[in-house]
Amino acid sequence: MSSSTPILQSLIADRWVGGTAARALLSAVNGREVALTHAEEIDFGESLSFARGQALPALLKLDFQQRAATLKALAAYLMERKEQLYAISAHTGGTRADNWIDIEGGIGTLFAYASTGRRELPSSNIVHEGPAVSLGREGSFIGSHVLVPKRGVAVHINAFNFPMWGMLEKFAPSFLAGMPCIVKPATATSYVAEACVRLIQDSGLLPAGSLQLVIGGSGDLLDRLEETDVVTFTGSADTAAMLKVNKNLIRRGIPFNAEADSLNCAILAPDVTPDDPEFDLFVREVFREMSAKTGQKCTAIRRAIVPRQHLDAVAAKLRERLAKIKAGDPSVEGVKMGALASKAQQADVAERVALLAQGNEIVFGERDGFAPLGEGVANGAFFAPTLLLCRDAFANEAVHELEAFGPVSTLMPYEDFDQALALAAKGRGSLVGSVITKTPALAAEAVMHAGAFHGRIHVLDREAAKESTGHGSPMPALKHGGPGRAGGGEELGGIRAVKHYLQRCAVQGSPTMVTAITGEYQRGAKVQEDAVHPFRKHFEEIQIGDSLLTHRRTVSEADIVNFGGISGDYFYMHFDEIAAKDTQFGQRIAHGYFVLSAAAGLFVSPAPGPVLANYGLDTLRFVNPVAIGDTIQARLTCKRRIDRGNRPDQPPQGVVAWDVQVMNQRGELVASYDILTLVAKQAAQTAA
Amino acid sequence: MSSSTPILQSLIADRWVGGTAARALLSAVNGREVALTHAEEIDFGESLSFARGQALPALLKLDFQQRAATLKALAAYLMERKEQLYAISAHTGGTRADNWIDIEGGIGTLFAYASTGRRELPSSNIVHEGPAVSLGREGSFIGSHVLVPKRGVAVHINAFNFPMWGMLEKFAPSFLAGMPCIVKPATATSYVAEACVRLIQDSGLLPAGSLQLVIGGSGDLLDRLEETDVVTFTGSADTAAMLKVNKNLIRRGIPFNAEADSLNCAILAPDVTPDDPEFDLFVREVFREMSAKTGQKCTAIRRAIVPRQHLDAVAAKLRERLAKIKAGDPSVEGVKMGALASKAQQADVAERVALLAQGNEIVFGERDGFAPLGEGVANGAFFAPTLLLCRDAFANEAVHELEAFGPVSTLMPYEDFDQALALAAKGRGSLVGSVITKTPALAAEAVMHAGAFHGRIHVLDREAAKESTGHGSPMPALKHGGPGRAGGGEELGGIRAVKHYLQRCAVQGSPTMVTAITGEYQRGAKVQEDAVHPFRKHFEEIQIGDSLLTHRRTVSEADIVNFGGISGDYFYMHFDEIAAKDTQFGQRIAHGYFVLSAAAGLFVSPAPGPVLANYGLDTLRFVNPVAIGDTIQARLTCKRRIDRGNRPDQPPQGVVAWDVQVMNQRGELVASYDILTLVAKQAAQTAA
Repeated sequence: MSSSTPILQSLIADRWVGGTAARALLSAVNGREVALTHAEEIDFGESLSFARGQALPALLKLDFQQRAATLKALAAYLMERKEQLYAISAHTGGTRADNWIDIEGGIGTLFAYASTGRRELPSSNIVHEGPAVSLGREGSFIGSHVLVPKRGVAVHINAFNFPMWGMLEKFAPSFLAGMPCIVKPATATSYVAEACVRLIQDSGLLPAGSLQLVIGGSGDLLDRLEETDVVTFTGSADTAAMLKVNKNLIRRGIPFNAEADSLNCAILAPDVTPDDPEFDLFVREVFREMSAKTGQKCTAIRRAIVPRQHLDAVAAKLRERLAKIKAGDPSVEGVKMGALASKAQQADVAERVALLAQGNEIVFGERDGFAPLGEGVANGAFFAPTLLLCRDAFANEAVHELEAFGPVSTLMPYEDFDQALALAAKGRGSLVGSVITKTPALAAEAVMHAGAFHGRIHVLDREAAKESTGHGSPMPALKHGGPGRAGGGEELGGIRAVKHYLQRCAVQGSPTMVTAITGEYQRGAKVQEDAVHPFRKHFEEIQIGDSLLTHRRTVSEADIVNFGGISGDYFYMHFDEIAAKDTQFGQRIAHGYFVLSAAAGLFVSPAPGPVLANYGLDTLRFVNPVAIGDTIQARLTCKRRIDRGNRPDQPPQGVVAWDVQVMNQRGELVASYDILTLVAKQAAQTAA
Repeated sequence: MSSSTPILQSLIADRWVGGTAARALLSAVNGREVALTHAEEIDFGESLSFARGQALPALLKLDFQQRAATLKALAAYLMERKEQLYAISAHTGGTRADNWIDIEGGIGTLFAYASTGRRELPSSNIVHEGPAVSLGREGSFIGSHVLVPKRGVAVHINAFNFPMWGMLEKFAPSFLAGMPCIVKPATATSYVAEACVRLIQDSGLLPAGSLQLVIGGSGDLLDRLEETDVVTFTGSADTAAMLKVNKNLIRRGIPFNAEADSLNCAILAPDVTPDDPEFDLFVREVFREMSAKTGQKCTAIRRAIVPRQHLDAVAAKLRERLAKIKAGDPSVEGVKMGALASKAQQADVAERVALLAQGNEIVFGERDGFAPLGEGVANGAFFAPTLLLCRDAFANEAVHELEAFGPVSTLMPYEDFDQALALAAKGRGSLVGSVITKTPALAAEAVMHAGAFHGRIHVLDREAAKESTGHGSPMPALKHGGPGRAGGGEELGGIRAVKHYLQRCAVQGSPTMVTAITGEYQRGAKVQEDAVHPFRKHFEEIQIGDSLLTHRRTVSEADIVNFGGISGDYFYMHFDEIAAKDTQFGQRIAHGYFVLSAAAGLFVSPAPGPVLANYGLDTLRFVNPVAIGDTIQARLTCKRRIDRGNRPDQPPQGVVAWDVQVMNQRGELVASYDILTLVAKQAAQTAA
């Protein structure tokens, strides 16, 4: 160990821990020491107690919107300092393009969750997962669901390949949900995670203890967890299986979300010929997944499934591309493929390739002249891209079970599409499968039959090619994680990921109680009516349940005639006395859109006021017809309000959704909907 | 064993198995033999192979709508024969009211899922869980999520207390999802499950092998499951923990959904005085949960948390009610509380009550003159209702951990509401907690702080009392299952339960591909335009992507004036030239509802035709303003079609949702929404 090598530190209870060297972490490029782990043992009791006692209350003092804004600020802070992260990441053996995935992909995920939170979450700490349902005939007892903060700690155990993205893609949704995290990165590349956490800590943007970092082993951490906590794991299926049965986790029913490496596949569909652009797209995709990140992606294509008649053509094109790739020290000009993460990985991949080669052919491999560029690369963890060919993949189990976590893939031919799907299924669950086809019906068939085996199915054709993000890239908006071998967990997927860190609770009670609980007006609940029209109140003054019962309006034949004239809508139900007699209504009825427009006329407050815009309308149902002579009346009630904070580019405002019921003279509901408005804040008036 | 006692049979691979007696199952009322289990071993290989090879393809030949209709028919079939089920259920020791929960509650759950399926699922085997999101700037690559059949088998391991409801509440969502089930009821009351399955099998309504029944042990069933299968478990937390770590389940990542008994609580909030109706509601609820089903409900109130100042009043009222209850053979007139399920349960409850009594007081129990009515009841499994009092529940762990699964509850006093919530949390996760209060803010506080510990929170006040379904009743529309001690699983909850038996798969591709996969038109996908107006096609003729680009219309000042006159909407943005100048638009703009109405005028087809009604509209957004002089045009495209089958009370018809985009002369989107229509089938024309 060199005395100048920095000793990494854990961040525990808002304090950096460690100063005594333990284990040296080596550069994947040249074997030199990059950093040392610390020898000090971590007191996980202290860590958890700080998370529960300090971080949790501070996180829950903020609401979803405020935490989303914090994530955005953090993302911007890191993006400004990304070059520091590229510098340290160079030791992992990745190229700049590889490290872009880790660094800017990670920061991008923070931005994405900031935006998801802002758009889809309320300005409180409770999510109403409605709609509520009536549990009795009279509507005095209703039920619904809410998602509330779990009031526990999220433990994230991460893999070595994406030390930053892997940390941030889990941190973002758990932070948004209001959970403090304890992150345990894989030790081999923990220096990247530590560098990132140092920046985060220096930013001062997060409440103390929101993110704790563990360098080294996780000790008795899992044994100390409680019912309200969550564990996520990314890594090998074997380690996942071992951790998942931890007695404490099982006894307390603590959720364990696993994302494990899997034998992902890409299928070249039988409709594609070598002349189609899709043929080259397939080759490009397989090549890219072998070379990007030196094949160390949990989503990489390990099984390339091709029609037997095109096997040779695919093999030839891949050989050609593989022969051209420059591997070596990524700092050397022109190098496109870096090293594996460590010597240990290098040995492991070599061993697995040897096993896979038994009974299979090597289409491309080390003997094809592999010589990484750069100084000291002999001490690095380089590995030749290796393409195998399994001629009978139904008879060989290893190619579906044994993963060489490096630039390694196996070609396997099929006779018909059913066989291709059957081969895909032999992976027994994977993170992602690609289907390269030009035929929509084949894509639909693939998803229908293979969807049960893959967390994600990526369909590639010429139309999508220009913008496709590729087989191997998990996207913040889409689920990441697959069934079976892939661990059975789910990460990302937009707001879905946040829900994993919240607890779903069914709630039952009177409409008034459920309104108070969900923060959303439920029909039948008590309303407030006062002298001020709800549209004349500023955002801050509006309360859930503020309500207006309008004056009435009798709908006449002239209304129908005039409305037809203006809209141009002369549908027979409104205008053809003869045909209207034969409908279920037995007579002409008013246009639905007339009812909607007349209701707006009933509740509008014409002069300029705090309501800035009616930007939309949801869940409109025409419940009963309005006949000539019927008298309608509307009730407008504040249903929901969201404060998304203030933005420099617009006057201070909030979103208010209003429940509208239009009734007839018999009190029957004729139309029901929500209208969405932007309402100015008082601050806006003061500022103006 | 009596030779006249029937031998129960398993239903395996569509064949009844068993004829050799094994173990006698005794009446809980008088100890007489009710039935015998069979000695024959079950070949689970055959059972699974039949489920995968025969039942699964047959189930997937039906779509969601057809399976929903099958569930409804099955529910009606069972309801007509319910008295047979009441007759056999009498041996379980329950009263008719208790068995109503099991029998009619179970059948009601079938009806509820039939209805949920009909309302919320498509007429295909794929659920689009949208909306899709654009993954590039130009919209040529988009992503979304689908839920597809898992193509595996659901194994349901059930508890003894509700042999029929427990089976049907899991069968309904898994059948709807298209999964064959293997049900293993608890042996003690398996004669009820067998009677129900015999009726189901006799009905001939289900594809063969949709529901297999296992009488006796589950042998090597779990060891034989595959990645696509699912296990659900209801029972004790200890058994759940044991089964959950089955090596095969862990290795293959097979979902294990547990619902375990838990120490549920009810809190009498501090705002309620003995003079409030809520006070009596609390007493009634605790009493009912002790006596109904002789307290053998996984949701029963084991911990009654009351303000210290009202402890004596609550205790006195409960004593009074408990002293009056008539226990005994439910066939005896006036008996309101039956027996426990078996002598083994009787012994177990007695043992646990003895442990709970250590250091606690017995407010009501056996010494208070317990004498069950009826003949032979000495051989039955009766147990005296027992109310304990724990004066310092923070110092006693047993009352929060040890469950006596019978008519047993413990009173525990608190000082303030925070303490009450802290006591509730000491159960470390439960199925349900009740809060009895008259103050909405207290209910909201309870859910915010206790929601993380309970699967369901039931709020009771005078308003809800008349229709409340009570603390102990899981409802089909609401989640059943709680965190931690309660197993961490989720059952029921409307459509959520069906999703547990489907696999979520993210899909990515061009809009045309995603349209084909999801069966739902995505903007940017190829559309079909032909000479026939889409509104003039019958349901069967309409294809996803059928599209109409309308003629154009220039919006003039006169339109705004006329629309204001008809609607009565004189909002300043449309009518006040001076004020409109100060808005973000800088000028008067057309009413949003005018744009909507004019668009309808553009795409309407006025003469009578297949479109029977426009019954609603979803997700309307006014994206850009329409100024005087702008020219608008609409595109109408078939987005979704659902065939719910035909009903005798209406002409044959289907639901069609249309995507509408209204654009201006610059091609900018001004309004975006879906309209919902009912469209006649060709059959309707023929029939007319």
